[in-house]
Amino acid sequence: MLKVGNENNMEKNKSAIIVGAGLAGSLWAVYLAKAGYKVTIYERRPDIRLAEISAGKSINLALSTRGWKALDTVGVGDQIREIAIPMYGRTMHDLEGNLTYQPYGKEGEAIYSVSRGGVNAKMMDIAEHDGGATIHYNHECLGADTKKGVVYLKNKETGEELSDQADVVFAADGAFSAVRYSAFQKLDRFNFSQHFIEDGYREILLPAGEGGEYQLEKNALHIWPRGRFMLIALANEDGSFTCTLFMPHEGDAGAFDKLNSKERVNTFFKTTFPDFYEMMPNIADVWEDHPLSSLGIMRSYPWHDGKTALIGDAAHATVPFYGQGMNGAFEDCTVLHELMQKHNENWESIFPEYSLVRKPDGDALQELSLDNYYVMRDFVGDSAFLLQKKIEAKFSALHPDKWMPLYSQVTFSEIRYSDAHKNGLRQDKIMKEVMASMENIETNWDSEEVMNRILEKI
Amino acid sequence: MLKVGNENNMEKNKSAIIVGAGLAGSLWAVYLAKAGYKVTIYERRPDIRLAEISAGKSINLALSTRGWKALDTVGVGDQIREIAIPMYGRTMHDLEGNLTYQPYGKEGEAIYSVSRGGVNAKMMDIAEHDGGATIHYNHECLGADTKKGVVYLKNKETGEELSDQADVVFAADGAFSAVRYSAFQKLDRFNFSQHFIEDGYREILLPAGEGGEYQLEKNALHIWPRGRFMLIALANEDGSFTCTLFMPHEGDAGAFDKLNSKERVNTFFKTTFPDFYEMMPNIADVWEDHPLSSLGIMRSYPWHDGKTALIGDAAHATVPFYGQGMNGAFEDCTVLHELMQKHNENWESIFPEYSLVRKPDGDALQELSLDNYYVMRDFVGDSAFLLQKKIEAKFSALHPDKWMPLYSQVTFSEIRYSDAHKNGLRQDKIMKEVMASMENIETNWDSEEVMNRILEKI
Repeated sequence: MLKVGNENNMEKNKSAIIVGAGLAGSLWAVYLAKAGYKVTIYERRPDIRLAEISAGKSINLALSTRGWKALDTVGVGDQIREIAIPMYGRTMHDLEGNLTYQPYGKEGEAIYSVSRGGVNAKMMDIAEHDGGATIHYNHECLGADTKKGVVYLKNKETGEELSDQADVVFAADGAFSAVRYSAFQKLDRFNFSQHFIEDGYREILLPAGEGGEYQLEKNALHIWPRGRFMLIALANEDGSFTCTLFMPHEGDAGAFDKLNSKERVNTFFKTTFPDFYEMMPNIADVWEDHPLSSLGIMRSYPWHDGKTALIGDAAHATVPFYGQGMNGAFEDCTVLHELMQKHNENWESIFPEYSLVRKPDGDALQELSLDNYYVMRDFVGDSAFLLQKKIEAKFSALHPDKWMPLYSQVTFSEIRYSDAHKNGLRQDKIMKEVMASMENIETNWDSEEVMNRILEKI
Repeated sequence: MLKVGNENNMEKNKSAIIVGAGLAGSLWAVYLAKAGYKVTIYERRPDIRLAEISAGKSINLALSTRGWKALDTVGVGDQIREIAIPMYGRTMHDLEGNLTYQPYGKEGEAIYSVSRGGVNAKMMDIAEHDGGATIHYNHECLGADTKKGVVYLKNKETGEELSDQADVVFAADGAFSAVRYSAFQKLDRFNFSQHFIEDGYREILLPAGEGGEYQLEKNALHIWPRGRFMLIALANEDGSFTCTLFMPHEGDAGAFDKLNSKERVNTFFKTTFPDFYEMMPNIADVWEDHPLSSLGIMRSYPWHDGKTALIGDAAHATVPFYGQGMNGAFEDCTVLHELMQKHNENWESIFPEYSLVRKPDGDALQELSLDNYYVMRDFVGDSAFLLQKKIEAKFSALHPDKWMPLYSQVTFSEIRYSDAHKNGLRQDKIMKEVMASMENIETNWDSEEVMNRILEKI
């Protein structure tokens, strides 16, 4: 019997262009290559594997369930596990250096610290060697014809301008996507917004101890919460920690524009993060090793036009406060892959459904991230808020089938972001009602009465 | 005594570039020229005065108090009055062709119908001849260095690329501002959004009668409200009316995507706007004379960077449902002019204050426009809403010093848009409370009791 069509992958008569060899782009390249596409990636930067060049400004990243799902589906999860460090909970550091520990989920549940550069390099290897994808570095995208599947490029080494065309094009070129700015944003009725929050961030590398040992517990995410600003630390493989200070750009005190001398930086760390300062008394000297960066949320719709689609940050960049930027981008691959199967690789059906179905989840991811920013900023020290979380944890432990904490829905499940967001709002409403209706809730918060009251309202 | 500095306008040692010779750009050119600046305008389109070319897609515009203020301050109001037609109220056309008339304000208060092209051409004349400004047509803006006050341009006739530099640069290049897209949007922490509403619009030219006469009352704005869509008509000087149909782009019925044949257009107008159809039975033949256009709101912040500022639609494009787009753009000139005097033309002080002070008014202008879209779309046939407006009108007539209707605040006053918006919300809250607290409000709406209840709440 004659075999026709796409079953023979050797022929590679299907082609795809991916703009951007970052996290989403390189993972999606593996998916497309395995589905038999001739994949060409154009990346603005040089090959991060050959040069000591940062793969973009970035905090260390936390891989969680959605990310692993997308990696495992295409068989690359285990290779990433080799460079991932589990974090089973968060360790809070107070002003006196006292530590408090909160597990993230149930026994054995963890989020995984990975370096953006490390994951990216490994994924590029896989895309090239296992997938047969071609990556062109130093190629800046100048524009695109979304309808025709054409991208216009400039070779930054030779200055040459060129174009390429494929059956489908994916813009995985990040929060400041050139394809989105130069092509999508000029489409009639394309909705878009970029909104920067008041806070920025600066990375700090806490080196390994003298014997190469970790100076902090390796398997936890460390947080120094200080009200309007905070410092966090995630372990690297070599014993160092990548730390990030989040703080307002401008302000009266505790703002980046006030930390404008070595002396001020030194005093600030000494008084605000004394236990951290003890490990790193040279903080003022390395303060400017990493740039001060901004934090923005980019919304867009639709996520496709003609033969071209936006994925990952190019479609729905978010602030990092829920640790879901990479996971959400990887989940885009899961969704697109499922739609490829559902629609038998008919992109004219896949793309509209992708925009329509996935957009509410991108929105919810952004809302959840922004909510968590406000929580961390304004409520982390609020006693009513902390009491509510304590009651929720107790109730969830009693009735795990009836109440999954929002954090677990987002981090340890594949519940759609939009459903998790709705569930979270409903749970919050129930908790607020219960807490308002009870007298002496501060003392009898773990009573049967309180637990039953919640049960009634579910 | 030796005179120094800017007092001698002859020398023109101060220079300004304006990108865009539209309404805001050409008016602002007059302001700057009169203040002694050597003004150079770069306009993407050919000279509209020489060619039969539309000055952009546009409904006829309604000039009101804020617009006149800005025109009169720089002495050009009377020249525009020559081509303006007063509209003292709105005339509603129902399905049977019955007319209802509502005055816009008090005796003698009117908004003024002007053609965008007509005002624009006159303003270009004034800028060139009275102001000595130079307008370069067919010059497309490719980019800008906002810090240095440089713009990069392409002469579309010769293909030549060039740049120009001045002390200050103003981007008056409209809703799709090239300066904003190519320069501002790439600035760190520049907030921006473009949001398109579900409705689009199409213009229709209702010609003068056979003897050149107006086929409708000239001194009114005509509205055919039909729930989810509406037709409006504003008089032109030559006896014709510029009419605009606002309607959803897509939908089950009464949507542009359903009016896709001459037969459907004909049937739609015959059944939906019978009195209009009688005047224009050839509507289906001229349906495609004007393009279907979209309606969007563009928000941005800040409105300045370095030596460059956004004005008019480039800063705060809005939907046209309050008739304030042009008036708001002209008021930007009033505000900038006042700040020039306050800060003695020190742009380093003027620009930050302009961004900070004027932004809330741009936001409020957009909120008011969007609110009015929803009002026209969803509430215009709502009996409670109509009752509320009736009570408000009665109360305002009784106590004109205590209650200026929101429409009058926006249209016939110079109250800041942001204050008008706040006042409107407060008035709405009072009215809702009064109406909810009274029994039989439908019958005793004009009673002393109701009027006193409002009085108590103010």
